[in-house]
This record gives sequence, C-alpha cells and structure tokens, in this order.
Amino acid sequence: MDRYIKALRAVRDNEPLVQCITNFVTVNDCANIILASGGSPSMAKDIREVAEAVRGVQALVCNLGAIEFIDSMIAGGKEANILGKPVILDPVAAGGTSLRREAAERLLKEVHFTAIRGNASEIRFLAGQEVSGSGVDVSKVDAITEENLTDMVEVAKSLASKIGSVIAVSGVIDIITDGTSVVVLRNGCATMARVTGSGCMLTSLIGAFCGAMPEDFFSATVAAMAAMGVCGELAEEQRLEKGTGNATFRIDLIDAVFNLTEKQLMEGIKYEVF
Amino acid sequence: MDRYIKALRAVRDNEPLVQCITNFVTVNDCANIILASGGSPSMAKDIREVAEAVRGVQALVCNLGAIEFIDSMIAGGKEANILGKPVILDPVAAGGTSLRREAAERLLKEVHFTAIRGNASEIRFLAGQEVSGSGVDVSKVDAITEENLTDMVEVAKSLASKIGSVIAVSGVIDIITDGTSVVVLRNGCATMARVTGSGCMLTSLIGAFCGAMPEDFFSATVAAMAAMGVCGELAEEQRLEKGTGNATFRIDLIDAVFNLTEKQLMEGIKYEVF
Amino acid sequence: MDRYIKALRAVRDNEPLVQCITNFVTVNDCANIILASGGSPSMAKDIREVAEAVRGVQALVCNLGAIEFIDSMIAGGKEANILGKPVILDPVAAGGTSLRREAAERLLKEVHFTAIRGNASEIRFLAGQEVSGSGVDVSKVDAITEENLTDMVEVAKSLASKIGSVIAVSGVIDIITDGTSVVVLRNGCATMARVTGSGCMLTSLIGAFCGAMPEDFFSATVAAMAAMGVCGELAEEQRLEKGTGNATFRIDLIDAVFNLTEKQLMEGIKYEVF
Repeated sequence: MDRYIKALRAVRDNEPLVQCITNFVTVNDCANIILASGGSPSMAKDIREVAEAVRGVQALVCNLGAIEFIDSMIAGGKEANILGKPVILDPVAAGGTSLRREAAERLLKEVHFTAIRGNASEIRFLAGQEVSGSGVDVSKVDAITEENLTDMVEVAKSLASKIGSVIAVSGVIDIITDGTSVVVLRNGCATMARVTGSGCMLTSLIGAFCGAMPEDFFSATVAAMAAMGVCGELAEEQRLEKGTGNATFRIDLIDAVFNLTEKQLMEGIKYEVF
Repeated sequence: MDRYIKALRAVRDNEPLVQCITNFVTVNDCANIILASGGSPSMAKDIREVAEAVRGVQALVCNLGAIEFIDSMIAGGKEANILGKPVILDPVAAGGTSLRREAAERLLKEVHFTAIRGNASEIRFLAGQEVSGSGVDVSKVDAITEENLTDMVEVAKSLASKIGSVIAVSGVIDIITDGTSVVVLRNGCATMARVTGSGCMLTSLIGAFCGAMPEDFFSATVAAMAAMGVCGELAEEQRLEKGTGNATFRIDLIDAVFNLTEKQLMEGIKYEVF
Repeated sequence: MDRYIKALRAVRDNEPLVQCITNFVTVNDCANIILASGGSPSMAKDIREVAEAVRGVQALVCNLGAIEFIDSMIAGGKEANILGKPVILDPVAAGGTSLRREAAERLLKEVHFTAIRGNASEIRFLAGQEVSGSGVDVSKVDAITEENLTDMVEVAKSLASKIGSVIAVSGVIDIITDGTSVVVLRNGCATMARVTGSGCMLTSLIGAFCGAMPEDFFSATVAAMAAMGVCGELAEEQRLEKGTGNATFRIDLIDAVFNLTEKQLMEGIKYEVF
C-alpha cells in the first residue's frame, strides 16, 4: 500500500507536466483530470513542435483515438525514449479497423512504451490474438470476468514480457503486470462505461502518476488505476444518492480525483497480488 | 404514443452503436448523450477507416459542422446506403457560407439521408429558399412561430417528398414529416438555445433512435425529438429551482436523457398530428 | 464603474456574434461562456470560409492553441481589420516552442489586434523579453506578484504603445492597459488555474464584450476581465461550501457568468487605476 500512497503524494508534490497527443472527443476531460490530480497538461500535437514540447514535460501520453496524429506520436515518443521519459499508450479500438491495426503495429515497432492501458479487446489484439470488438468499447466476448481472469492475466504477462512495458487491462476487474508481478484490482463501477473517455482519462492519469514517480512505473500505474477506480465508486455513491446521470457522474468523478485523500485511497482500494 | 415508447425501449434494449462524423465543438456532448440514451458512440472520422467502421454500426450521423470531413461523410454515407443502414444529417449553418452551401448540395446529391434535422433557416436553405441566417443559430426571421407554422410545414413536407427523407425542423415548435404524415411537437425550453450543441446532440439522439428501431424511422425521429424536448423541460425545472445557469443545464439535460422514464415521456410529450 | 456596467449590459442587449478560431481542448467551454454572457458563438475555422464568416460577426477571437489554423487567423483577422471589427488574440504558450514563436510573430505582423490577453510569460514574450515557461501555464518566475507589478505594468504599457493594442495580463493580479491608462484588478481565485481553458474562456469573453461595445475597447476588456474574476470568486465560494472540485468549479464558473448581475459586478470588482 505504501508505494501507492507515495505515488499519489508524488503527483501532488511534483506537479508533473504531462503532454498528451489525444483525440478531440475527450481531450478536455483528459486535461481536467490531469489538473485534478495535481499535474499540469499540455495538449500540443503538431508534428512541428511535439518533440520540442516533450523536452519540457515529465511524461507523454499517446492516444490512438487521435489516429491522424500517429506521426506526432512517433516523433514525440522517440524523443521521450531518448530522454528516458515515460511514454504511455492508449490503444483505442486498436483492432477495430485495418488503419488502427497498422497504426498500433507501427507505434509498437518505433516507440518503447513505459505502460499501455487498454480494455481486454485492445490488449488481446496487441498480444496477437483474434478479437471481435468493432468499436471503442470492449466486446462482450472479451470482457474480463472471474472465469477468464487467469487467461487474461497470462495474455497480459506475456505481452508485458515481450515488449518490456507495464500492461494495464481495465474493466470490471483490472489487471496490471510488468511481466513478473501481477496486481488485480476490483474497484470501479458500471457507470464508468456510460461516460465517454473514462478510458482516455485513466490513461492520462497514468501519465501523471508515471511522470511524478519515475523510479517505479509499475506502482505508479497501479496507483493511478486504483485512484480512478476508487473515485468511480465515490462518484457512483453520489449518483445514487442524488439520482443524477452519466453527465453529473463525469463531473463528480473528476472532482473526486481533485479531492482524493490518502485515507480514501488506502481504505477504498481492493487489490490482490495475483 | 405506443410507437414512441417502443422507440425509447428499443434504444435501451438494442444499445445501438452510432457512428458520428461531427465537429470538435460538441463532439464530447454528442458521445455522452448517445451513452445517456443507452446507445454506444463511435466518433471515428478518418477517411481511411470510416467506411470500414460503418459496417459495424447501426446508424451514421453526419454533422456539417465538421466541414473538413465532407469526404468522410460521403464515403461513410455511401457505405451505409449500400448496407441499408440509417444515415442522419445535421446541416449546421448550411446556408451560412458558400463553402457550406456547396458541401450541403454535394452531400444531398451523393448520399441518401434517412433523416435530416435542422433549424428553420437550415431546412429552408435545403428546400431551396432564400435564408438570412449568418451563423449556427436560426435567424429571427426564419424561426418557427404559430403564425408561420403552416408555411414551414409545407416547406418541410415538400423537401421530404423531394428527397425521400424524414425532415425534422427544431425550434420553439418542432415539425417532423416524411412528406405525408406530419407531427408537431411543442416541448423544450428557451435555455436549450443557450447551450452550444443542443442541436448536434439532438441529431445524435435521432441517430441512436433510428439505429435502434430501423423498421420505423419516422416514429424513431419523433420519439428522439420528443425525448429531447421533455428532457429540456425537466432540466429547465431544475435550473429554475436551483438558480443555476446554462452549464449546469447542459449537464442536467444529459442526465435527464439518462434517467428518462417511459412515464415521463408519455406524460410530457406535447404532440399534435398536423 | 459605470462604463463596466454599461459593457455588461451591452453584451446582454446586443447579443454579439463572436467568431472564434480556437483549439480543440477548450472550444466547447469557449462557446458556452460566450452563450452564458449573452453572446452567440461561431467556431468556424476553415480557411475556405473564415473571411466570409467574419463578415457576419461582431468580433473575432484568435487562439494560438489552434496552431494549425494560423492561416485562418490571418485571413479572418485581415478581413476584420478591413471591416473595422475587433480582433482579440490569445497567445497560448507563445514563447513555448519555436513553432509558436514564429506563429506569434507572423500574427502580430499581419493582423492588428484590438486586444491581446495572455499570462505574464506570454505577454513578456510578445514584448521581446526572455521567458522561461515551457508550457501553457505561466512560469513561476514570471507570475505577477505585488513585488514585480510595477515592472510588469511597464512591459505591458510599452507593448500596448508599440503595437496599438489593449494589453491584458491575467494572473493573481490582472493588468489592463492601452499604453496610457492602466487598470489593475485583484479578483479571481487559485482554482481557476486548475481548470483547463480558463484563459481561453476569458479571451472569448473579451471578444463578446468588445463585440458588444465597439466604442470603448479598453473598458470592454476591463469589464470582461472583472466579470471573469468576480465569477471565479462566486464559483469558488460554492466549491468551498459544497466541497466539490475543479470540474464542478468549471460548471459553476460558466453558470456565474450566465447569472451575473450588475450589482454583483459592481460590488465584487476590486480595481485600481494604476
């Protein structure tokens, strides 16, 4: 637990500047959740300035939803690799179309990612498995359940070992692994899937945590995933109490990150070393 | 009434995947209102993947605000036409500039639209009339009133017959017609015009309803328009009660769609078969 | 004071149409705050229509965050200059990368700006000084304090005189000058810096006020800055009372603009003729 509290504290203390190359659907929420966490966002994505911008930041987040900015991701990612700064990938709908399949393959070949956060369909695709998802949401066949958990853990571990990245699979159950250690989280709530960009926001948060605690990317990723899950539960409590919907939930979720205490994270986290 | 309740139920039961090629101003709200309704959004707009993406969805929404993606709309629209999937057009500011006038004409020539939802200025322009609106909002001259209602109904009917689309004109009074049947709705509130994208959101909602009930696009469109109007009134009640403004109203509006009951729709709808 | 109340009233009475060429991160908030103020937003940015669109509006806002639309800003700005309409610049991260430095220089050379609103780093850069900021936020070295206020006023005055623009520097303390008169404001709160786009929103608001009161751009700019600061304080009161975070604060801030009374502005403004 201590290392996750340490990660939360590091984000508030170090105020990491996080560069995101992300899509137009959720970019505002990604910026605001980074600000809520204590970090500072930069959303510059133009190929003519992205590498230069990366020099001033603590982490780079690449979101495949911004499919037209793959060249910027590669330019920024290579610069971050040279400088030893963390690069996080969100492989949005990676297996959904041939354009995205090729883009994801190119990214993995040209950039080393510190961490990759996706849903089960996206991670299975990156691991070379057949997937059935057609859109941005996880396909029902692929979604993590207690039944297929062990299998999904193996897929994630093997991908992590192969490419040397922390792999984070989010869903009803979350899996985080560096190929050796595996942590399973059972936080969050169903309403998170009714808000666009909850995945993108989570990946941005991982960027903030990794940028703030570069000495332990695995723990930083677990801490960010746990923070998001706990905050999802806090926002869901409010939704049920106030009778609101997915729009207020989104606001309450970001607010919960803004106000998250170490006590809330410590008491709320449901984790298991797998 | 039964058919509108059936449409609402269909969106929740069928969880239609709705592809939107839409503009960067309101894309997040469009995605969240589709999620609120029970559907699932995909905002991919890249010409290199849009036709492929359309194969996996139940409806396509084209928003002229995304003026730089006309080619994607045509590619996606043609694919949807071949597959027999509904395509909805939002002719944002269609008559406002020569670029938009030409784009709108090209779209109507190359794609068959299942339904078109615009304000009175936009629909009048598509019907070949002179319009005075310079921006995204309806011009005061064109706005639907009880006085010009019959005239606007004739314009909409004639356009619907000519191009074989359901035509939905939104304003203080809404008109929906397939060229033969005409339904007039008197729901909604003035604050809706103080939120950017209330029109775009409405068109996205029509996409979700048409995607969920492909056997009756006319009723699906009426149901979506009525749902939006009733939810606007519910949000306005809260605004007056809480003393909030247009930003909270936007949140409450999406929440109202999330929580809309069949009873609320049935009791709230103010419709007239014209 | 009277002239600021007059400006607020003018926005509500004249409902200025404000054209913004702005970035995808905060475009929705910019549109909604213009609507909250009483104005009407148009976010068209395509080079093929921007000059034509400018003909129908009362003000143009150019936001350097939309770095890929510099040509549109120049085309729109030149048209506005010819027509004598106000053009407002937000030099987002102007000194941050060489791409932005060049873009800012090109803009200043080709367009005459009625007003420029930036943070201290951005304004110092435009005034030809060395700056240390790497991102969109003001660098800690540059931030306005009571200690460096006189120096910053001199920088702003000299820039204003040189290029003939109203210069507005926002921060813990705000400075507005036309090169002769100087007004200092001490409104606002720290949470504003924890919301993405609070600067972009403020610049959009200046666009609405200048569009509504073209006979006195200096007072219009002061009034918009004061309105934003007072509304920030009102939103902060609510945040402390409700225990919410930066996401709710953003909503409350826009709501406060929607509901701002002349009395609130008059009693809340903390200004000093410097």
